[in-house]
Parts: sequence; structure tokens; C-alpha cells
Amino acid sequence: MSVMRLSRLFTKTARQAPNNADSLNADLLVRAGFVQQTMAGVYSYLPLGLCVLRKIEVAVREEMNALGAQELLLSALSSREAWERSGRWGTFDVLFHVPGAGDQEYALNPTHEEIVVPLVRHFVHSHRDLPFACYQIQTKFRNELRVKSGILRNREFLMKDLYSFHQDDACLERYYERVQEAYGRVFDRLGLAERTYRTFASGGSFSQYSHEYQVLLPQGEDTIYISEAAEARGRRVAINSEIYRKGETVCPVTGGMAFREACASEAANIFKLGTKFSVPFKLQYTDDGGQSHPVVMGCYGIGISRLMGIITEVFADDEGLRWPLSIAPAAVHIVPLAREVTEKAYKEAEELLARLEGRGICALFDDRLNASPGVRLADADLIGVPFRVVVSEKTLQKKKLEVKKRQVGETEWMTEKELIALCNPSPPSPLPLRQERGG
Amino acid sequence: MSVMRLSRLFTKTARQAPNNADSLNADLLVRAGFVQQTMAGVYSYLPLGLCVLRKIEVAVREEMNALGAQELLLSALSSREAWERSGRWGTFDVLFHVPGAGDQEYALNPTHEEIVVPLVRHFVHSHRDLPFACYQIQTKFRNELRVKSGILRNREFLMKDLYSFHQDDACLERYYERVQEAYGRVFDRLGLAERTYRTFASGGSFSQYSHEYQVLLPQGEDTIYISEAAEARGRRVAINSEIYRKGETVCPVTGGMAFREACASEAANIFKLGTKFSVPFKLQYTDDGGQSHPVVMGCYGIGISRLMGIITEVFADDEGLRWPLSIAPAAVHIVPLAREVTEKAYKEAEELLARLEGRGICALFDDRLNASPGVRLADADLIGVPFRVVVSEKTLQKKKLEVKKRQVGETEWMTEKELIALCNPSPPSPLPLRQERGG
Repeated sequence: MSVMRLSRLFTKTARQAPNNADSLNADLLVRAGFVQQTMAGVYSYLPLGLCVLRKIEVAVREEMNALGAQELLLSALSSREAWERSGRWGTFDVLFHVPGAGDQEYALNPTHEEIVVPLVRHFVHSHRDLPFACYQIQTKFRNELRVKSGILRNREFLMKDLYSFHQDDACLERYYERVQEAYGRVFDRLGLAERTYRTFASGGSFSQYSHEYQVLLPQGEDTIYISEAAEARGRRVAINSEIYRKGETVCPVTGGMAFREACASEAANIFKLGTKFSVPFKLQYTDDGGQSHPVVMGCYGIGISRLMGIITEVFADDEGLRWPLSIAPAAVHIVPLAREVTEKAYKEAEELLARLEGRGICALFDDRLNASPGVRLADADLIGVPFRVVVSEKTLQKKKLEVKKRQVGETEWMTEKELIALCNPSPPSPLPLRQERGG
Repeated sequence: MSVMRLSRLFTKTARQAPNNADSLNADLLVRAGFVQQTMAGVYSYLPLGLCVLRKIEVAVREEMNALGAQELLLSALSSREAWERSGRWGTFDVLFHVPGAGDQEYALNPTHEEIVVPLVRHFVHSHRDLPFACYQIQTKFRNELRVKSGILRNREFLMKDLYSFHQDDACLERYYERVQEAYGRVFDRLGLAERTYRTFASGGSFSQYSHEYQVLLPQGEDTIYISEAAEARGRRVAINSEIYRKGETVCPVTGGMAFREACASEAANIFKLGTKFSVPFKLQYTDDGGQSHPVVMGCYGIGISRLMGIITEVFADDEGLRWPLSIAPAAVHIVPLAREVTEKAYKEAEELLARLEGRGICALFDDRLNASPGVRLADADLIGVPFRVVVSEKTLQKKKLEVKKRQVGETEWMTEKELIALCNPSPPSPLPLRQERGG
């Protein structure tokens, strides 16, 4: 979508929150026409919302590709046998069990170790086949008893899941570090870097720690303990509530013991899986002496639809949504204040639209001349595109554009060239592809 | 993926067909490393296969956008209540019924009328809100008793489904015609135009006919009856076996009664739904006299993953896959015949790769110098990229490129400029966006 005329968009904004809005993100995203609830805990994404979701995907995908990870698409259904082999069929509490035709029973996957490990086994035989990593951006399912928080905790949601495969712990450790760097860049691109904390969590049986990426949010459902010593060194490190013990916990990065409590929302997590899945699925490689070993694995998630909800809540104000430019459904929202399409203000606005389009800048164009200026300006605030341009008789006389910056709420007069420069910030630079193989 | 070095690709080709290959497409796509079976009737898409799937998506998406249709993403899960309201919970034979937490029961959607109609109801009130159309490219589920034919008939598959909404039959009829034109362009872009027949099928209760798009395929599971009178006029029209009666059926386009039997595979279908779903879901609009009427609907599917299987079978030969340029995982497959990366042939091949990349041309680069030339050339044939370039001492002496055109099997000597021209055919031109609203 490079240009969208609001008169043609089939969705509409609403002044009132939906009855079932259980959170700020559901309230605003539904009212602004970005999502609709299909049923409790299950949402559909409307044209504007899908645009945001796709831009979050692109930011994540580019950083995964820069890591040398290879994109694939795993199935949503899998066999009961695969989940029995890993021992999780009966123990994974939110796993959907789906009755099939005949006596079949399937799983509707909430995560994909049980699918990716047998798949990868077709291709991994020798140490020369390692290391590598593959990822997907795909719909996951969780049979939650209760759902809440709009699109933050759903029965169906979009995830990026990356899996890495290594000969030994040292190789996994190096890759795990590189993924952390990539995740830092992802949160930077999404405008969340300054409020995202790499949070130490329980590591399970294989590793001392796993890591969560927690975004500060007053209404967030998690409590984290921010390391003040790390913060003093300009690093955002925290401990999650499961492993934090007041007066006992030591910051693994700085050794400090001063922590500050904060509310946050989990946007991503990364684990060292070790050989937990490669052993039951017999994913092995032979070393150069011909000996077999289980492959060592890591797994790395980012909640794509969840991030959309988090970003909504982080930036929203009383007037509505406020999207960072990198994932906004458009960069510019043009509101011609005219009564007829024959008026000069409307024609000039359309010409501006065409020039922006020519420069590859996405724009919304509010051509709903039957709606009042008040409604149209309120809709622009609600939809939350970064730069709102009003074109009227009055603005045309100034020979400059009246641009409201939605993030800061200020209106400035600027030239078209200045607006275009704002819409085309210097692109983020993912790390160049390394020459080493995959890992 | 603009450049992929085969030594880094975690997938591998195989000489032997998998044990469970039930079709030509499964055999070749698995051997060439494009897909893997997760379980019977459920496939995962590997990097090369995902690339093809995405390119089919792009061809379809561009034509849908050119129609003015708006993309969204509907949920895979829906409520039992929605399917009960349409009367299909107990009667849609391949509907997965998914037990949820507590007493909940969900549907895993095989089609989306039950989801899109209540969604659209939030936005349609007056005749001024019509017509419009929306579509998605999304994973569908069918609880098939038996599955077969590789990725052609699966329990999980990727579909494009478009829904249109109108005031009356005449408006639906006009849109239905426009969708047929768009479908013609999709099959043209995919290289299938000359073997795709618009096939008249039963129209159900609302309409005399629906239409299928059947692609000629000797091993196709459907039988169609090609209208010879239409063919004489350069039009590809057929009747499906359900409604064909020998000696009675008349071609609806020409009035002719001469038909030729052929085997084919269904790639798409379009229906007039009328008010079948708008009545139970109370999707109504008020006309300018203030009277309420049910909205008139059409629905239009294309099987994205199915098309990948059909295209595989249509073009494959004894050596392997043969992709049309528009959806090939890459345009060029470079094979440097050298023993060391320091040899001139390897260096020149890498420089060619860089120049192609600089022009935005996707290329596979076979840097597996440990594999024999025979294996590497056989792999190039199996993977089926349109233009294979061998770079060796011998070819360098000729100062031209040795290019094998995979589709025709012929090898030609050409300049780099000529190769680039082959990779950049004049782009297909989707119809310009019409100025009318949606429909």
C-alpha cells in the first residue's frame, strides 16, 4: 500500500471503545480500524493493521537474514507422535489436541521444535553440515484457558522463531551472543531500544540462564528488577521475577546488587536448548573422527503481533495511536480542507500526494469531503501516522506545509523538501552478511 | 533472497525419491530441497520452496490490488457459534472441530465466510459503504480422510481468498467479470495461460454457474470437457464433469455442442454467493429510501500452494524441475568449474554474481567445490532455475557466457548483456487502479 484514500478504505474509525475491549491496545486498535476480534483471544488484522504487522515482520526478517539465518515456513499442524517423542504431548499445558479423520489426532503447534528437528535431520549428517540457523514468521496457537490484554496474549498469534544448530556449546554460545546483538537492532528499529531490558530468566536444565526482552510498560503484566549498576554503565539489564531474590540476587553482568522494580511486557525470549530435542529425535552429526554426537541447539522467539500491541500501548496518548515511522501504516496523512474536489486546496493536496508517491513515500489521503474537519482531524490523531499535513486556503497562502508531528504533538511549518527528508531517515544498517557459514 | 550460495544452504538435494512420495510434485520438490513432509498431507516449505511460494503470492497480490481489493488477514480459529449460525458446523465435512480449554469448541477455518461476514458488518450500514472487496493470503485447514498428490491436496495449505460485497446482482455481475479478467492475468504471469481453462461448474442455489480454473495436466484428478467451438475462436472454455451431459450440454459461451475430454487440475474457483451468508449474519445496508436489504456477495479463491504443485507437474521433465522465470527461486544458477577458490574461473564467476546482484537479479551460486561437476550440473537441472551459467577455463576463453536455458534444454553462447535482458523481461502490467470505489 503506497497510497490509501480513506473514502475507499472499507474499515471505519469509531468514537466509542468496543464493549469487549480488555486493554488499551484492543480499545485503540479496534477504534482506529486496525484489528477486529473474531472471538475471545483471536483477532483479525484489517488493512491498516496488516500494514503495521508486515512492517514489523520486515524489520525482524532483515535482521535475521543479516545473521545468515535461512527463512522457511513450517506447518501449523503436526502429528501426535512427534509430540509424544519429545514427551510434550501430555505435558505442554496449552497444546491444542485436534481430532482428525479416522483415529488421527494432531497438534496445532504453539512452538516448532517438534517439527524443525525431524526436518533438519534429513540434511545434517556430518560436522561439515554445521553450524546453521533457520527461522520462520508464522502463526502459533495456544489453548489458553483465559485470554486478556487485547492482542498481547492470544490463542492465535504471529511469531518469529529462529532455531540454531551447532557442534558444541562454544559454537552455540557465540551464536547466542550474535542473536542478542541482532535483537538489540530489532528493538532499535522499532523505536523501543531505550525501554527494552535484556532480562535474565531461568535457564532450564541445560543452561544457567535464558533471556527475555522486556519492554517497560506501566500496565505490563510482568515485574522485572532493573540492575542499577548496569544502568549506570549505560546498559539495560534486568532480572525476571521468577529468579529474583531480594537481597540475594547479583546482577550477572555487573555484580551489583541494587535493583529497581518495574512493570514490563515480554516481547521476545531466547533459550539454549542444548540437546533436549536432538536426543529424542536422534539429530546427530559425526565428527572428523567418525564419532556421533547429538547436535546442540538454541531457539530464539520474537512475538510479532504481540510487539504490535506493545508498541501501541507504549506510544499511545489520549488522542489515539502514535506509530514510530519505521512501522507506521503510512508516513504522511494528508487532510485537504475543502468542500469540493474542484477547490484549489483539494487539487494541491492531490498533487502533493502524487509527488510523495513518486518518491516512494506511503501516504493516507483523507478525501472524505462529506465528513467535518473536526472528525477528520480527530481521525488523523486516532490513526496515528507520524506526519499530518493539512492543506487549506490558509496553508496555501503561506507557501509552506503545515505539518503536525504526531509523536511530539507539535505543528511546524516546513517545505516539502523538509517533509520528505523527515519521511526518509537514513536507513538502519543491519550488519553485512558475514562470510562464515550460517553460524 | 537475492544471492544464495549452495554451500551455505542447509538443505540438500537427494538422488532418490522419498519413500512416501505419492506424486511427481512430492518426488521432485522433496528431492530438490523445496519442501519436506511434516506428516501425511502436511508439508513444510524450505528456503527454495518458500521463495517460489512468495513469488506466486506476489503475482496474485498485485492483481488483487490492481482490482482495488484491500488485503487483510483473518484468523485461522473461529467460534463454533459462527459456524452454527451459517448452518455449516455439522455439515461441512472437512471442518476441523478443535476442543478448547473449558467447554469451548473452535473451528479451524477451511474457508472464511463465517469470519469475514461478521467482521464486515461492523463497517457496512448504508449503500454508500458499497461496493468493496477484501482478500487475504492465508493458511487453510481441511480435515481430509485421505490425502494425496503431494502438495496438491493437503490438510493444511495456502490460499488467496477474495470476498466482494455489493448492493445488487448487477453490481456483483460486473465485479465477477473483472475478477475473471484479473484471474486471466494471474495465470498469464505464472506461465499457465495457454493450458488454463475457465470451466463452468454448478452454481448452487444462487446462480446458474460457478467457475473453476482448470490447468491441463495428464495426471490431473479432474476431467473437463473443452468446448471446441470456443477454442476455434481462441477462447479456453470448458465444462466440468459434474454438470457435463454428453449430447445435451451446450457451451454457454458459444452455443456449440462439440467437446473434447481432458485431464486437468483445479487451481482456482469463483462463486456468486448472493445473500447466502449475509442473511444469517444480518449483513444489511439501507438504500437511499432508508430500506434495508441483505448485501450481495461473491467469493473468489486461488490455491497458492496448490499452484506451486501444479506448476511443478506441468513443467517438470526427466531431469527435474523447470520454473517459469516469474516464480523461479532465482533467475540464474552459476556453476564455476574450478578446484580452488583461487582459480580464475571461480573468481570470474564470483564477479559475475556480484554484477548480477548489483542489477537486482537473484542468483544461486554453486560454490560446492568438493562436489563433482557431474553432481553439480545434475543439481542445477533438478533445482530448475531458468538460466544456468557454467564458468570454466574453457568458457572464459570464448569471452561469452555458456547459458543453458532450462525450459527448452538448449545451451547458447551469449553476452552478459543478453543474459541480463533475458532475466529482466518487460514487466507484466496489471490494470491501472480504477478510480471507482472498490467494486
